[in-house]
Amino acid sequence: MLQPRRNRQTRHETMRSASAVKSTKIVKPAKPTVNVKTSKDVKFSSLSLIDPFAKKHSRSQLQQIRIIEAAIESFANRGIEATTYARLARDCNISRPLIHHYFPTLASLFLMAAKHIRRSHLEAAMFNVKKAGPEAWDQLKAFVEGSFDWIEQHPNYAKFWLLYYYQCGLGGAIASEHTALVKAGEESLQSILSGFNLRKSDDPYVLTKSIQMTAIGGTLSALTESRHLPGKKAREITLSAIASILRGHRLL
Amino acid sequence: MLQPRRNRQTRHETMRSASAVKSTKIVKPAKPTVNVKTSKDVKFSSLSLIDPFAKKHSRSQLQQIRIIEAAIESFANRGIEATTYARLARDCNISRPLIHHYFPTLASLFLMAAKHIRRSHLEAAMFNVKKAGPEAWDQLKAFVEGSFDWIEQHPNYAKFWLLYYYQCGLGGAIASEHTALVKAGEESLQSILSGFNLRKSDDPYVLTKSIQMTAIGGTLSALTESRHLPGKKAREITLSAIASILRGHRLL
Repeated sequence: MLQPRRNRQTRHETMRSASAVKSTKIVKPAKPTVNVKTSKDVKFSSLSLIDPFAKKHSRSQLQQIRIIEAAIESFANRGIEATTYARLARDCNISRPLIHHYFPTLASLFLMAAKHIRRSHLEAAMFNVKKAGPEAWDQLKAFVEGSFDWIEQHPNYAKFWLLYYYQCGLGGAIASEHTALVKAGEESLQSILSGFNLRKSDDPYVLTKSIQMTAIGGTLSALTESRHLPGKKAREITLSAIASILRGHRLL
Repeated sequence: MLQPRRNRQTRHETMRSASAVKSTKIVKPAKPTVNVKTSKDVKFSSLSLIDPFAKKHSRSQLQQIRIIEAAIESFANRGIEATTYARLARDCNISRPLIHHYFPTLASLFLMAAKHIRRSHLEAAMFNVKKAGPEAWDQLKAFVEGSFDWIEQHPNYAKFWLLYYYQCGLGGAIASEHTALVKAGEESLQSILSGFNLRKSDDPYVLTKSIQMTAIGGTLSALTESRHLPGKKAREITLSAIASILRGHRLL
């Protein structure tokens, strides 16, 4: 019984699994280093994300997207411990060694899944923004509505996202990577907010984060309080709260 | 290898574990029913939470609190799969049958841990409010600051909370129970907000949820973005966002 468990821990590597045993050595997040060849983490960081919305994908890219999608579904519903290369191979009908070739550790696959999801989320929100016309408030509404549409359309992505938050709370490589993901969201939001006539007294960063926090809290409520707060109501209240923030800054 | 895994799944019962296998039968959340004796879920719901702040506890109550504290630490750091009765017995030096007597399933222990944490959180926030004086805004600030103090003082509680959110996202008994916990927070917040001079056009529920969502999003950012956003800054921005919401309603 002990042997396979240890093996599993090894496969997960830097990702602290949801059921990491107390005695498991906690791997510190890899710092950026020149010594690329010796660190799997750094090797992973250099992996570039495939644009899921590209017009054309190579065979290899299509396979990687299929693996990532299968991984998201598995992490979201089975959790971390029960997601294995063997199962993913069955799920997406791609050989285990090939999955291993693309994603040398399950931790790297978890992180690529997170990047894929964040990208899909941002693209969906920004796609909505582009349709919204030139008014800054319409764009901001479209951005937030895009997030709510997205969690409705991709329940597995949303479940994965909650597991991802738990992993971030544990620290480690995932918490480090999270910075990049959060910053991407801040940038999109900041570019929309630049359409408002901010005063000198308005700190654009504080305003951006205020709105981001409210949107995060609102989508989290939609995800976790669905028995109490219908998704439509959560969306309405989130938009109302953001409108109040802007009115509080006399921007609306 | 398979046998012990199945056993573990059985022990977790209605709590869908972080690594629930696809083929695991998904237990529907128990509906309130008169047939109390046949449903463990309902049996559990009738368990009453021990007030951790009571002046005096019986020996049995002290033991239950010790078990719950050990469970929180274990769920937070080891996750769900690796939290077992045997380990908890070692952690808190209470016999396995006695733990089983107090908490017949690990799912019931997980939920009692969630209730315990939410209670500790609310009590901490309300304790801060009582010290704050009569001004509604001072009270609201104290309430939110209390949440941030609390996550700083209880890192394991906060980690548990993120795991709990993931479980809520999966649905089931925990998502049902979550309603009661969220409502308790809403009630406290609503009683503070009654100190503001709300206009007829202000929907007290929308205002309450707006502030709750922003506070949830702010604490979540503090928990998951600590490498990018220091806790102090997250607290500052959350308070600034809430002040903006109130100014947006011309209540500040």
